[in-house]
Amino acid sequence: MSDMIRVVVDAMGGDNAPGELVKGAVQAVQGHETIHVILTGDQDAIKEELAKYSYPKDRVEIVHCSEVISTAEPPVNAIRTKKDSSLVVGLQMVKKGEADAIVSAGNSGAILVGGQAIVGRIKGIERPALAPVIPTENGCSLLIDCGANVDARASHLVQFAQMGSVYMEHVLGVKNPRVGIVNIGAEEEKGNALVKETFPLLKECPGINFIGSVEARDIPAGVCDVIVCEAFVGNVILKLYEGVGSTLIHMVKGSLMKNLKTKIGAALISSSLKETLKAFDGSQYGGAPLLGLKGLVVKTHGSSKAREVTTSIYQCESFKKQRINEMIKDYLTDK
Amino acid sequence: MSDMIRVVVDAMGGDNAPGELVKGAVQAVQGHETIHVILTGDQDAIKEELAKYSYPKDRVEIVHCSEVISTAEPPVNAIRTKKDSSLVVGLQMVKKGEADAIVSAGNSGAILVGGQAIVGRIKGIERPALAPVIPTENGCSLLIDCGANVDARASHLVQFAQMGSVYMEHVLGVKNPRVGIVNIGAEEEKGNALVKETFPLLKECPGINFIGSVEARDIPAGVCDVIVCEAFVGNVILKLYEGVGSTLIHMVKGSLMKNLKTKIGAALISSSLKETLKAFDGSQYGGAPLLGLKGLVVKTHGSSKAREVTTSIYQCESFKKQRINEMIKDYLTDK
Repeated sequence: MSDMIRVVVDAMGGDNAPGELVKGAVQAVQGHETIHVILTGDQDAIKEELAKYSYPKDRVEIVHCSEVISTAEPPVNAIRTKKDSSLVVGLQMVKKGEADAIVSAGNSGAILVGGQAIVGRIKGIERPALAPVIPTENGCSLLIDCGANVDARASHLVQFAQMGSVYMEHVLGVKNPRVGIVNIGAEEEKGNALVKETFPLLKECPGINFIGSVEARDIPAGVCDVIVCEAFVGNVILKLYEGVGSTLIHMVKGSLMKNLKTKIGAALISSSLKETLKAFDGSQYGGAPLLGLKGLVVKTHGSSKAREVTTSIYQCESFKKQRINEMIKDYLTDK
Repeated sequence: MSDMIRVVVDAMGGDNAPGELVKGAVQAVQGHETIHVILTGDQDAIKEELAKYSYPKDRVEIVHCSEVISTAEPPVNAIRTKKDSSLVVGLQMVKKGEADAIVSAGNSGAILVGGQAIVGRIKGIERPALAPVIPTENGCSLLIDCGANVDARASHLVQFAQMGSVYMEHVLGVKNPRVGIVNIGAEEEKGNALVKETFPLLKECPGINFIGSVEARDIPAGVCDVIVCEAFVGNVILKLYEGVGSTLIHMVKGSLMKNLKTKIGAALISSSLKETLKAFDGSQYGGAPLLGLKGLVVKTHGSSKAREVTTSIYQCESFKKQRINEMIKDYLTDK
């Protein structure tokens, strides 16, 4: 039992709940024998979905909840009042140690607020950070922080660099990950007040591989593995990444459908192009962990399909096996 | 003579100087009879380039300068010490009213510093702003500010919105331009301290068409015409735009060259695809104006070719004809 990992899947959160969430959970237990999932949400709806699959019944559990937090609800109020929601019940299980992790595709703000308020921070961590993985030309990078707490301090950014390095090395398998700070020029004297204050602290920080400033232009080429920035800038990067990508892909597809000649051409390149664009799709890396909490909270896209849910559950498994939180704590006591 | 516009072209600035700068200047005088260009820089090198073309000699002037500011030089020092550089001499001509505008593809920092220190701000303008045009799916948007002065105040952002609106409407011809502020959510209560302070000021600001918060994800789709943000965020947006675009295009091209089948397909779609990607190339809109100065300073890409130089000179023409600076001043006295 000690090798088992218990992951809550918020079956009611996200655009494709409960169908894709349940499917993703079933695929995860089918794929790895050490995974036990707990589906929180409306038991009738969950049972209906589960009935579609054959799976090891002893490793799929349902915890019935009578409430759902919707995407549009104000987060703080939702967490406070909806005690029997699939998200709050799941977070409580992580807090009590009844589960190791929770995966949710629901209300982002509520996941962030609930993660901090219910699961709680690791002692010494000043601010937890949401760290999605973004695709690059040759792989991926971790973008930390993209959470909801803006106006960060330099000491927060240093902890982001440390937590991001541990995650990138031990969950995503990147040896000695290169850490860069988002800046508007490569020189050390460039930047806003926050970056100027953080830069020397990162330079002196032991145990991380700090490579200096990173300009946004160079992020897609994969110039570093851990991209450190405060949450407002991180949000802009994450969302613009998606926006430019989807607009360009939309435009390219439009140019392929222009006339008969281009349609024939499109048929010839379609599989190669699809493969290329798939490589630039972040969802293959699973959801974004909220790092710095006592348990693991993973936020996946609201539009997540089963595959992303499964990947996110596997991510939780690596997180536990690699003892990421213990490593983060070690950083703090080293200081 | 009163309808003539006199534009300095810094012939020594940028990766393609002096060749493409001179060529762009010649094309501009050939194209519009009301344009007079003044080429600043090494007269022998400029004459050698000019000898390649036939053009109306009375509207192309050379002002010899013995120095050049290189791309890597620290800006403040360069502006202070290189009094006989092509950039400083050109800026001095704008200051003295001997020219209406200057176009430079040189050292960005030096253009920003020199513009402010030599040409000077319009009285009442707290901070000039660099406002490049970025391509969107259906046209373009003005991104203001992308300059070097970070950590802006709310009052700066309000002036950016006003100056950007005037420019977008009267130089780029967008009626009643929609103004948005870059934010991490659509709701008014979201944002960092600066955005929260600025939002109500923009709501109450007369004479602009404020549509509220804009998420970075929606910028490429063209959700607003004037995108207001402080310079650090503006820089990140501008550079990530270029980075994601060029990485994706590079990847798409790679997928087309994969094998014989895709190469045949590529040949069939190539002209349609080129046309599409051209629409997503910001350089067709000319350079970025530095708004809020007593004269007009336009910064074009360091890699500018003749076409972008010509477009930038035409942009200066509209700027003068439409009396943009008088309109900006009117905003200030209206308050």
